[in-house]
Amino acid sequence: MYYIGIDLGGTKIAAALIDSHLTVMAKLTVATAPEEGMQAVVDRIIGSAVRLCESAPVDIGSVGRVCIGSPGPVVRESGTVLDAPNLRWKNVALAPPVARALGVPVIVENDANAAAVAENLLGAGKASKNMMYITVSTGIGGGLVLDGRLYRGSTGAAGEIGHTTAVRNGPMCGCGNRGCLEAVASGTAIARRGQELACRPAGRAIAELAGEGPITALTVAEAARRGDTAAIAILRDAFEYLGIAVASAANLLNLDTVVIGGGVSGVGDMLFEVVRREVNARAFPFVAEKCRIVPASLGADSGVLGAACCAAGIGA
Amino acid sequence: MYYIGIDLGGTKIAAALIDSHLTVMAKLTVATAPEEGMQAVVDRIIGSAVRLCESAPVDIGSVGRVCIGSPGPVVRESGTVLDAPNLRWKNVALAPPVARALGVPVIVENDANAAAVAENLLGAGKASKNMMYITVSTGIGGGLVLDGRLYRGSTGAAGEIGHTTAVRNGPMCGCGNRGCLEAVASGTAIARRGQELACRPAGRAIAELAGEGPITALTVAEAARRGDTAAIAILRDAFEYLGIAVASAANLLNLDTVVIGGGVSGVGDMLFEVVRREVNARAFPFVAEKCRIVPASLGADSGVLGAACCAAGIGA
Repeated sequence: MYYIGIDLGGTKIAAALIDSHLTVMAKLTVATAPEEGMQAVVDRIIGSAVRLCESAPVDIGSVGRVCIGSPGPVVRESGTVLDAPNLRWKNVALAPPVARALGVPVIVENDANAAAVAENLLGAGKASKNMMYITVSTGIGGGLVLDGRLYRGSTGAAGEIGHTTAVRNGPMCGCGNRGCLEAVASGTAIARRGQELACRPAGRAIAELAGEGPITALTVAEAARRGDTAAIAILRDAFEYLGIAVASAANLLNLDTVVIGGGVSGVGDMLFEVVRREVNARAFPFVAEKCRIVPASLGADSGVLGAACCAAGIGA
Repeated sequence: MYYIGIDLGGTKIAAALIDSHLTVMAKLTVATAPEEGMQAVVDRIIGSAVRLCESAPVDIGSVGRVCIGSPGPVVRESGTVLDAPNLRWKNVALAPPVARALGVPVIVENDANAAAVAENLLGAGKASKNMMYITVSTGIGGGLVLDGRLYRGSTGAAGEIGHTTAVRNGPMCGCGNRGCLEAVASGTAIARRGQELACRPAGRAIAELAGEGPITALTVAEAARRGDTAAIAILRDAFEYLGIAVASAANLLNLDTVVIGGGVSGVGDMLFEVVRREVNARAFPFVAEKCRIVPASLGADSGVLGAACCAAGIGA
């Protein structure tokens, strides 16, 4: 029996076909755009699944299930995407049209949950029993594997470490709350701090590096890499908040592993050193000791591989 | 088959005998004191179990298991209490001598975990699938029931909501960290705020109420009940921190129920109103909507009943 995972992003759709041993038989990526509208995206998903089977080659009749990893909250069973701002979707019943076209059962899973499953089964969290996956990118998402299984919570929305409060009366977050971790430690937050600084003397290095282009988290990271103290301070502050959130989750959930991925984690050592330090300072010693903090190892593939694992019903 | 639960406190030992339908056959409470030393406490536990069986009456040979709920982190399987400051115990192998004396298998469980199980099976969290239990008393402890079972984490220490960070550089906590929820929202924290205020004009009502006695959280609560604005502000601040921690946990774990017990929760409506408001303001609307926040209903019995349920292997 074979399984198909689909990772639905704002700019591309990735698809992977695996067998029941989780061996990847074929992978495919196609570009997409929110402007195309929902029907075009659905057609691309269907087309990707068909082409994937043809390229393996595998008869689509031997595909046991398809799982689509989607941003935002989802209803797994009905296959509904509740709210995906990147796609401009609200309450989209995604699974039914795909299932009808392919003649295969289709489920929908949150993409960070899927990535958590992949890192747990195939990546940096292999053999972990109680693991949190965090992706630090434009936003901050996450997924939890507890007692060896994906923990989805009451409505499938568990794992939202990005929307735990870091600062009681902190900056507004896109979710409507104040002071969320995402509002102080995401790529967007780092970029905003860089932009605020760029028009002041302390931000000269950041401004010069950006030139005529926009100031992004990458600009701040590059300035920090070149030794600019203001850029280093921005990153350290963001990573400390991340570390505090990880320490709190480690104490609350007595985790054995925290896997951190996403674009911002590409900064590397500095992020992991600061997070480790906060966990050692803040979590119980017997919790901190047993809690590994490691970079994600599957990169951009975690979403699509995780969706495929969820389709196979493994880890989920 | 029968099961015995023991709740080991700093000043008393409670014991309960239940049958396999969780019906309570007998309860017993005896006073104890840390000064007595470990052997005296062990003897009292053994004596309580024997007397409990005699009073039912039930033959001790028909007791399937004993579970001792202990403060602090424990190792369930070896029956070791790792660190119980109230008892002045460190690394005490509690289960073996009790098991030898009674001729019955004995396990040890964290007391807040046991209370969470009791509230989930018999109390305010009945029928909840994903629940957090919080006890706000001298300290702040907690336990988690996730996917319908006690979630213990990697070393049995999960549920420590009191030691998640509320204020990045907040007041020192007994655990060695800064700004833990326990350091800003426990009965001890409320009492400290009251004491700090008592020598200033704004704290006159609190000081007068205490008279020659000590200023405790109860003093602050009573002053608040009588309308003193300074006391009300102290409580509101503590409860807001509690609400922020509950909102974060609700988003991270997509909980359906939060049960709040412990002495401070006796303040009642004000605590629950403030916590509810923070959850509504901070958690995702679709999370907040589905998350009940309710007072614990088993009172001081939750620990001993939960230990008995854990002995029976139900919910754990």
